[in-house]
Amino acid sequence: MNVSGVTELLQEKVMRLLKDDMDKIQQLISVQMENLTTRKCPVYEEVLDTQIYGFSRVVDFAVRAGLVEEAEGKSLVKQLERNLALLYEAMEKAEG
Amino acid sequence: MNVSGVTELLQEKVMRLLKDDMDKIQQLISVQMENLTTRKCPVYEEVLDTQIYGFSRVVDFAVRAGLVEEAEGKSLVKQLERNLALLYEAMEKAEG
Repeated sequence: MNVSGVTELLQEKVMRLLKDDMDKIQQLISVQMENLTTRKCPVYEEVLDTQIYGFSRVVDFAVRAGLVEEAEGKSLVKQLERNLALLYEAMEKAEG
Repeated sequence: MNVSGVTELLQEKVMRLLKDDMDKIQQLISVQMENLTTRKCPVYEEVLDTQIYGFSRVVDFAVRAGLVEEAEGKSLVKQLERNLALLYEAMEKAEG
């Protein structure tokens, strides 16, 4: 295996790990989305914010290490932030 | 360059990035340590907690990606947590 082969394998592994992390956060968002009216958990927002912050730090690191393209990394974080914004919107509507 | 050469280079780069991040957090701790009595900033603890949380997520990721040995990664985070504990101790003494 040559140099670019090794890097490519590692980049794939890193992307797989990031997607796993994203899925876990997305799962948290989905659970809350499904339970908008039945139960409210005030710390939920804080947990999600913290998780997404941690994820964005990891993505930033992977970009700095040259393991993820900057645009791709930003798009992963944006995707989560967009879904979180949708959740907040739905929560507000459920309250109103 | 062979496979282990590439991995080694990348591991060194990753360790350098982690040490940079550690230094920044350590700098925050030192600044607060030097200003124990002159100024108090209530959000400082929260900022430090958040920074160390983010750092620990990055270290965890680097370990999972096989770029840092688990023991080494844990020792980096422990070092920061120990320094943070020393700061809290000093803050309590300064208050008392």
